[in-house]
Amino acid sequence: MSFAFVCDTVDGSARAGRLTLGDTEVRTPVFMPVGTQATVKTQTPDEVEATGARLILGNTYHLMLRPGAELVDHMGGLGRFMGWRHALLTDSGGFQVFSLAKLRKITEEGVTFRSHLDGSEYALSPERSMEIQALLGANIAMVLDECPEGGAERAVIERAVARTTAWAKRSLAVPRRPGQACFGIVQGGTHVDLRLGHLSELAPLPFEGLALGGFSVGEPIEEMYRVLSEVAPAMPSDRPRYLMGVGKPIDLLRAIGAGIDMFDCVLPTRNARNGQALTWHGRVNLKQARHREDPSPLDEQCDCPVCSNYSRAYLRHLITAGETLGGRLLTQHNLHFYQELTRRAREAIVDGRYASWAAGVEASMQAHDEIGGG
Amino acid sequence: MSFAFVCDTVDGSARAGRLTLGDTEVRTPVFMPVGTQATVKTQTPDEVEATGARLILGNTYHLMLRPGAELVDHMGGLGRFMGWRHALLTDSGGFQVFSLAKLRKITEEGVTFRSHLDGSEYALSPERSMEIQALLGANIAMVLDECPEGGAERAVIERAVARTTAWAKRSLAVPRRPGQACFGIVQGGTHVDLRLGHLSELAPLPFEGLALGGFSVGEPIEEMYRVLSEVAPAMPSDRPRYLMGVGKPIDLLRAIGAGIDMFDCVLPTRNARNGQALTWHGRVNLKQARHREDPSPLDEQCDCPVCSNYSRAYLRHLITAGETLGGRLLTQHNLHFYQELTRRAREAIVDGRYASWAAGVEASMQAHDEIGGG
Repeated sequence: MSFAFVCDTVDGSARAGRLTLGDTEVRTPVFMPVGTQATVKTQTPDEVEATGARLILGNTYHLMLRPGAELVDHMGGLGRFMGWRHALLTDSGGFQVFSLAKLRKITEEGVTFRSHLDGSEYALSPERSMEIQALLGANIAMVLDECPEGGAERAVIERAVARTTAWAKRSLAVPRRPGQACFGIVQGGTHVDLRLGHLSELAPLPFEGLALGGFSVGEPIEEMYRVLSEVAPAMPSDRPRYLMGVGKPIDLLRAIGAGIDMFDCVLPTRNARNGQALTWHGRVNLKQARHREDPSPLDEQCDCPVCSNYSRAYLRHLITAGETLGGRLLTQHNLHFYQELTRRAREAIVDGRYASWAAGVEASMQAHDEIGGG
Repeated sequence: MSFAFVCDTVDGSARAGRLTLGDTEVRTPVFMPVGTQATVKTQTPDEVEATGARLILGNTYHLMLRPGAELVDHMGGLGRFMGWRHALLTDSGGFQVFSLAKLRKITEEGVTFRSHLDGSEYALSPERSMEIQALLGANIAMVLDECPEGGAERAVIERAVARTTAWAKRSLAVPRRPGQACFGIVQGGTHVDLRLGHLSELAPLPFEGLALGGFSVGEPIEEMYRVLSEVAPAMPSDRPRYLMGVGKPIDLLRAIGAGIDMFDCVLPTRNARNGQALTWHGRVNLKQARHREDPSPLDEQCDCPVCSNYSRAYLRHLITAGETLGGRLLTQHNLHFYQELTRRAREAIVDGRYASWAAGVEASMQAHDEIGGG
């Protein structure tokens, strides 16, 4: 494995670059499909590859509980285990510990928690997270961070920032798989001064990239856009910038405009299983009766296999009948759409027309969106 | 559409033939995957096609309730609606009315029932079933029959036989889609005399094929084998013989030996979703802990994409983690296995070695089977 990043073009604050992860070249901006439990839900690795994705995310929390990091290592690492031939990033497990696990207790040492599956007790420290991620063997590991709840008070966020810095330093001292990269995570909520302060602590450390954590935790979306516009451009320009857990197509457009290079989110996969397709004309809700006899594809502009082969009427039937093929086909479409969205964003950046392109896409998405509330 | 059947070779009672259904040639013995709700659960039409299947079954009961036969017709028929380019058979809806629907009431006219989905009332008569099947537009339609419960008394079965004959005659009087074939259904439980009597009533009627209904409804499996060995060879040799709703791989081997040409069953698809793979070495239960770290494929002898790409350890992980990809991959393997089983059976018949081939396969399956109770 090896790691390299180059930024090819800058257009305003937006960047087009290339990540080299072992044998895999990943063009940025990049969206990473989420493979929570060693699978991008409902999809085969071949299908994920066919969407254009070359970098996916695995969840340390889920994998440490089941099937266990040692088993994954024994089976040749996460990529080999799940049959994914390209690059992988694993998160630290922290976000799920804070959102899913029970009876968690945080100390300076780390966090203890009970599994949401069977209640058994686990400990996760910065060191153990890095050890687990070495066993999983992804190209990129993330440091364990403390992610305060949305709406936390400033003092709570300040404490999380301090702890995340201490944990970041300890993470860097842990031996990794040869060539495995490690990214630090900037916290600070929606406080620009805390974000910039934390960034100035982490930027000098030898991380291969830096991420923004603690967004999309319930804050008003305009708040996130505002903070991003001030923080993202201040992140080191020679390293990739990763906005964790975000987001909707419009969020990606805004964040790319602010200078973000990397994204992950369960939205395209999770919403697919709930009957929602993302398209160039906004969201399509297949549960709506208007699609009942509609012979047209999800998106006339899309050349994915789902839009080439299936009608809205058929997809709606699958969703309303509870057939898992419905969620599977919508997932395939949505992942294809996210890859195409970032591919076209890159093209616009390279051509020096990102802002106008993004504004046009955003307007088109909002004009036809079938679901209220942005 | 058009319909033709030729029997190429007879080996003992076993037959190798060819069904021509419009543009589709189907070699017999044939196993039809079940596409209950306009989808072979979890699979795309391309995947079903890649297993070698060219004829699948749709369930009239499910389709008349959702999305409705008129909608399917409006969308170009069942094949076009679901994207299946090859041949289709639809059942009459009777079996599901008797097993799934509520408050059913049978009269000479037909059956009224309440939907298991929302309790709304429907009527199904021999005529309406044929009308619905014309709207669905399958190559082969089945007559509405009365299927008594397993363990029904002889008098009940005799009444069902008489009613099924009357309904069969009425069904033949209904206009069909041009070229659409219609099969009659022989009832009679495990009473050989009733079966042969019913057969002698239906055989003179202008059906393109004849089926055996009312098996696999709880009778001891040896009873079915015994009745089949006496009834199947007595069925008209110039027309296809279809054993409905059967069965396990060994059931297929026995029934093919008795002279059956066509099968359908939810077993390979349903059991897949429950973690069970069918192989040349019997059933593999992926829920068993023994597969936890097993890097080998489901079946070393199988060349399906699942056995080429995934380990038992990974498939077990998907099943135990509740990932639908697990059931999807096992379905793909099981359907491939059933197609390969009937393909090799045909080869053995053509070579005149069916009995010894089938005995060898049966012995190998039973020697390693992981699940008790046959």
